[in-house]
Amino acid sequence: MTTQEVADKLVKLCAEGKFQEASQALYSPEIVSVEAGAPPGGSRESKGLAAVMAKGEWWTANHDVHSVKVEGPVVAGSHFTAAFKMDVTFKPQGRRFTMEEIAVYQVADGKIVREEFFYHM
Amino acid sequence: MTTQEVADKLVKLCAEGKFQEASQALYSPEIVSVEAGAPPGGSRESKGLAAVMAKGEWWTANHDVHSVKVEGPVVAGSHFTAAFKMDVTFKPQGRRFTMEEIAVYQVADGKIVREEFFYHM
Repeated sequence: MTTQEVADKLVKLCAEGKFQEASQALYSPEIVSVEAGAPPGGSRESKGLAAVMAKGEWWTANHDVHSVKVEGPVVAGSHFTAAFKMDVTFKPQGRRFTMEEIAVYQVADGKIVREEFFYHM
Repeated sequence: MTTQEVADKLVKLCAEGKFQEASQALYSPEIVSVEAGAPPGGSRESKGLAAVMAKGEWWTANHDVHSVKVEGPVVAGSHFTAAFKMDVTFKPQGRRFTMEEIAVYQVADGKIVREEFFYHM
Protein backbone atom coordinates (compact mmCIF):
# COMPACT_ATOMS: atom_id res chain seq x y z
CA MET A 1 0.00 0.00 0.00
CA THR A 2 1.10 3.57 -0.62
CA THR A 3 1.32 6.12 2.20
CA GLN A 4 -2.01 7.57 0.99
CA GLU A 5 -3.70 4.16 1.06
CA VAL A 6 -2.39 3.38 4.57
CA ALA A 7 -3.49 6.86 5.72
CA ASP A 8 -6.99 6.53 4.27
CA LYS A 9 -7.47 3.11 5.85
CA LEU A 10 -6.22 4.23 9.26
CA VAL A 11 -8.50 7.28 9.28
CA LYS A 12 -11.50 5.22 8.19
CA LEU A 13 -11.01 2.58 10.90
CA CYS A 14 -10.30 5.14 13.64
CA ALA A 15 -13.34 7.24 12.69
CA GLU A 16 -15.38 4.06 13.25
CA GLY A 17 -13.73 3.62 16.67
CA LYS A 18 -11.83 0.54 15.45
CA PHE A 19 -8.47 1.58 16.92
CA GLN A 20 -7.20 -1.89 17.75
CA GLU A 21 -8.28 -3.26 14.36
CA ALA A 22 -6.36 -0.39 12.73
CA SER A 23 -3.21 -1.23 14.70
CA GLN A 24 -3.47 -4.94 13.92
CA ALA A 25 -3.97 -4.32 10.21
CA LEU A 26 -1.59 -1.46 9.55
CA TYR A 27 1.24 -1.47 12.11
CA SER A 28 4.63 -3.03 11.55
CA PRO A 29 5.81 -5.64 14.09
CA GLU A 30 8.54 -3.07 14.86
CA ILE A 31 6.13 -0.15 15.45
CA VAL A 32 7.39 2.60 17.76
CA SER A 33 4.65 4.66 19.44
CA VAL A 34 5.57 7.96 21.11
CA GLU A 35 3.26 9.83 23.49
CA ALA A 36 3.54 13.58 24.20
CA GLY A 37 4.52 12.77 27.78
CA ALA A 38 5.66 9.81 29.83
CA PRO A 39 3.39 8.18 32.42
CA PRO A 40 4.74 8.35 36.00
CA GLY A 41 7.84 6.16 36.12
CA GLY A 42 7.35 5.13 32.51
CA SER A 43 8.60 5.97 29.04
CA ARG A 44 7.12 8.07 26.24
CA GLU A 45 7.96 5.25 23.84
CA SER A 46 6.32 1.87 23.35
CA LYS A 47 8.20 -0.51 21.06
CA GLY A 48 6.83 -3.45 19.15
CA LEU A 49 3.31 -4.40 18.12
CA ALA A 50 2.57 -6.37 21.32
CA ALA A 51 3.42 -3.39 23.55
CA VAL A 52 1.45 -0.97 21.39
CA MET A 53 -1.58 -3.28 21.26
CA ALA A 54 -1.39 -3.65 25.07
CA LYS A 55 -1.37 0.15 25.45
CA GLY A 56 -4.43 0.29 23.21
CA GLU A 57 -6.18 -2.43 25.15
CA TRP A 58 -5.63 -0.55 28.42
CA TRP A 59 -6.96 2.63 26.83
CA THR A 60 -10.02 0.88 25.38
CA ALA A 61 -10.81 -0.86 28.67
CA ASN A 62 -10.59 2.38 30.64
CA HIS A 63 -12.47 4.81 28.39
CA ASP A 64 -16.03 5.05 27.15
CA VAL A 65 -15.87 6.69 23.72
CA HIS A 66 -18.92 8.87 23.07
CA SER A 67 -17.72 10.25 19.74
CA VAL A 68 -14.65 10.32 17.50
CA LYS A 69 -13.91 12.91 14.86
CA VAL A 70 -10.86 12.52 12.63
CA GLU A 71 -9.58 15.30 10.37
CA GLY A 72 -7.17 14.46 7.61
CA PRO A 73 -5.21 12.61 6.55
CA VAL A 74 -2.66 14.98 5.08
CA VAL A 75 0.10 13.04 3.31
CA ALA A 76 3.70 14.11 2.53
CA GLY A 77 6.07 11.49 1.16
CA SER A 78 6.51 8.67 3.67
CA HIS A 79 4.62 10.53 6.44
CA PHE A 80 1.05 11.50 7.10
CA THR A 81 -0.79 13.38 9.80
CA ALA A 82 -4.32 13.57 11.19
CA ALA A 83 -6.14 15.22 14.09
CA PHE A 84 -8.28 13.28 16.55
CA LYS A 85 -11.06 14.85 18.62
CA MET A 86 -12.68 12.44 21.02
CA ASP A 87 -15.40 12.87 23.60
CA VAL A 88 -14.58 10.23 26.22
CA THR A 89 -15.19 9.25 29.82
CA PHE A 90 -12.23 7.96 31.83
CA LYS A 91 -14.09 5.16 33.55
CA PRO A 92 -12.06 4.76 36.77
CA GLN A 93 -12.89 8.38 37.69
CA GLY A 94 -16.18 8.82 35.81
CA ARG A 95 -14.57 11.94 34.32
CA ARG A 96 -15.80 13.03 30.89
CA PHE A 97 -13.52 15.19 28.74
CA THR A 98 -12.58 16.06 25.19
CA MET A 99 -9.22 14.88 23.86
CA GLU A 100 -7.71 16.81 20.97
CA GLU A 101 -4.46 15.62 19.49
CA ILE A 102 -2.32 15.65 16.37
CA ALA A 103 -0.82 12.35 15.25
CA VAL A 104 2.09 11.92 12.82
CA TYR A 105 2.72 8.54 11.20
CA GLN A 106 5.69 7.20 9.24
CA VAL A 107 5.13 4.48 6.66
CA ALA A 108 7.68 2.01 5.29
CA ASP A 109 6.95 -0.95 3.03
CA GLY A 110 3.20 -0.39 3.37
CA LYS A 111 3.16 -0.52 7.20
CA ILE A 112 3.17 2.15 9.90
CA VAL A 113 6.57 2.00 11.61
CA ARG A 114 6.28 5.03 13.90
CA GLU A 115 3.50 7.14 15.39
CA GLU A 116 3.83 10.22 17.57
CA PHE A 117 1.12 12.17 19.36
CA PHE A 118 1.08 15.88 20.16
CA TYR A 119 -1.29 17.38 22.72
CA HIS A 120 -1.32 19.86 25.53
CA MET A 121 -0.31 18.39 28.86
CA MET B 1 -4.79 34.86 18.31
CA THR B 2 -6.29 31.40 18.62
CA THR B 3 -4.47 28.30 17.39
CA GLN B 4 -6.72 28.35 14.31
CA GLU B 5 -5.88 31.99 13.56
CA VAL B 6 -2.13 31.40 13.96
CA ALA B 7 -2.41 28.29 11.76
CA ASP B 8 -4.34 30.08 9.01
CA LYS B 9 -1.87 32.97 8.97
CA LEU B 10 1.18 30.68 8.88
CA VAL B 11 -0.23 28.64 6.00
CA LYS B 12 -1.16 31.77 4.03
CA LEU B 13 2.29 33.34 4.39
CA CYS B 14 4.15 30.09 3.63
CA ALA B 15 1.99 29.38 0.57
CA GLU B 16 3.14 32.81 -0.71
CA GLY B 17 6.77 31.82 -0.04
CA LYS B 18 7.02 34.32 2.83
CA PHE B 19 8.71 31.93 5.27
CA GLN B 20 10.84 34.49 7.08
CA GLU B 21 7.94 36.92 7.39
CA ALA B 22 5.87 34.10 8.91
CA SER B 23 8.60 33.36 11.47
CA GLN B 24 9.01 37.02 12.38
CA ALA B 25 5.29 37.55 12.83
CA LEU B 26 4.22 34.33 14.50
CA TYR B 27 7.14 32.79 16.39
CA SER B 28 7.80 33.26 20.07
CA PRO B 29 11.24 34.63 21.10
CA GLU B 30 11.63 31.20 22.77
CA ILE B 31 10.77 29.16 19.65
CA VAL B 32 12.27 25.67 19.47
CA SER B 33 12.63 24.24 15.96
CA VAL B 34 13.28 20.51 15.51
CA GLU B 35 14.43 18.96 12.23
CA ALA B 36 13.93 15.29 11.33
CA GLY B 37 17.68 14.79 11.44
CA ALA B 38 20.77 16.62 12.62
CA PRO B 39 23.23 18.19 10.18
CA PRO B 40 26.77 16.72 10.36
CA GLY B 41 28.20 17.70 13.74
CA GLY B 42 25.09 19.69 14.59
CA SER B 43 21.87 19.36 16.53
CA ARG B 44 18.30 18.62 15.46
CA GLU B 45 17.16 21.53 17.60
CA SER B 46 17.49 25.28 17.09
CA LYS B 47 16.49 27.42 20.06
CA GLY B 48 15.40 31.03 20.06
CA LEU B 49 14.06 33.29 17.32
CA ALA B 50 17.51 34.52 16.23
CA ALA B 51 18.78 30.96 15.64
CA VAL B 52 15.61 29.92 13.82
CA MET B 53 15.65 33.04 11.62
CA ALA B 54 19.33 32.36 10.81
CA LYS B 55 18.45 28.80 9.78
CA GLY B 56 15.72 30.22 7.55
CA GLU B 57 18.06 32.79 6.04
CA TRP B 58 20.59 30.08 5.16
CA TRP B 59 17.83 28.02 3.58
CA THR B 60 16.44 30.96 1.60
CA ALA B 61 19.89 31.99 0.38
CA ASN B 62 20.72 28.45 -0.79
CA HIS B 63 17.49 27.40 -2.50
CA ASP B 64 15.55 28.64 -5.50
CA VAL B 65 11.90 27.95 -4.79
CA HIS B 66 9.97 27.09 -7.97
CA SER B 67 6.67 26.29 -6.25
CA VAL B 68 5.20 25.80 -2.78
CA LYS B 69 2.06 23.85 -1.99
CA VAL B 70 0.73 23.78 1.57
CA GLU B 71 -2.00 21.38 2.69
CA GLY B 72 -3.84 22.06 5.92
CA PRO B 73 -3.81 23.40 8.51
CA VAL B 74 -5.44 20.77 10.69
CA VAL B 75 -5.91 22.08 14.23
CA ALA B 76 -6.27 20.15 17.52
CA GLY B 77 -6.23 22.12 20.76
CA SER B 78 -2.90 23.93 21.14
CA HIS B 79 -1.31 22.15 18.16
CA PHE B 80 -1.72 22.25 14.41
CA THR B 81 -0.18 20.45 11.48
CA ALA B 82 0.35 21.07 7.78
CA ALA B 83 2.12 19.44 4.84
CA PHE B 84 4.62 21.27 2.65
CA LYS B 85 5.47 20.21 -0.90
CA MET B 86 8.14 22.33 -2.50
CA ASP B 87 9.86 22.18 -5.83
CA VAL B 88 13.30 23.66 -5.17
CA THR B 89 16.83 23.85 -6.52
CA PHE B 90 19.70 23.58 -4.04
CA LYS B 91 21.83 26.31 -5.55
CA PRO B 92 25.34 25.20 -4.47
CA GLN B 93 24.86 21.93 -6.40
CA GLY B 94 22.32 23.07 -9.01
CA ARG B 95 20.26 20.08 -7.89
CA ARG B 96 16.48 20.33 -8.33
CA PHE B 97 14.24 18.15 -6.15
CA THR B 98 10.86 17.96 -4.47
CA MET B 99 10.68 18.29 -0.68
CA GLU B 100 7.69 16.77 1.05
CA GLU B 101 7.35 17.18 4.78
CA ILE B 102 4.87 17.23 7.61
CA ALA B 103 5.18 20.04 10.15
CA VAL B 104 3.64 20.10 13.64
CA TYR B 105 3.37 23.39 15.53
CA GLN B 106 2.57 24.14 19.17
CA VAL B 107 0.94 27.47 20.06
CA ALA B 108 0.98 29.24 23.44
CA ASP B 109 -0.32 32.76 24.11
CA GLY B 110 -0.92 33.35 20.41
CA LYS B 111 2.66 32.52 19.32
CA ILE B 112 4.31 29.40 17.90
CA VAL B 113 6.62 28.01 20.61
CA ARG B 114 7.69 24.75 18.94
CA GLU B 115 7.84 23.36 15.42
CA GLU B 116 8.93 19.90 14.33
CA PHE B 117 9.43 18.56 10.83
CA PHE B 118 8.97 15.00 9.63
CA TYR B 119 10.40 13.75 6.34
CA HIS B 120 12.18 10.78 4.90
CA MET B 121 15.95 10.94 5.22
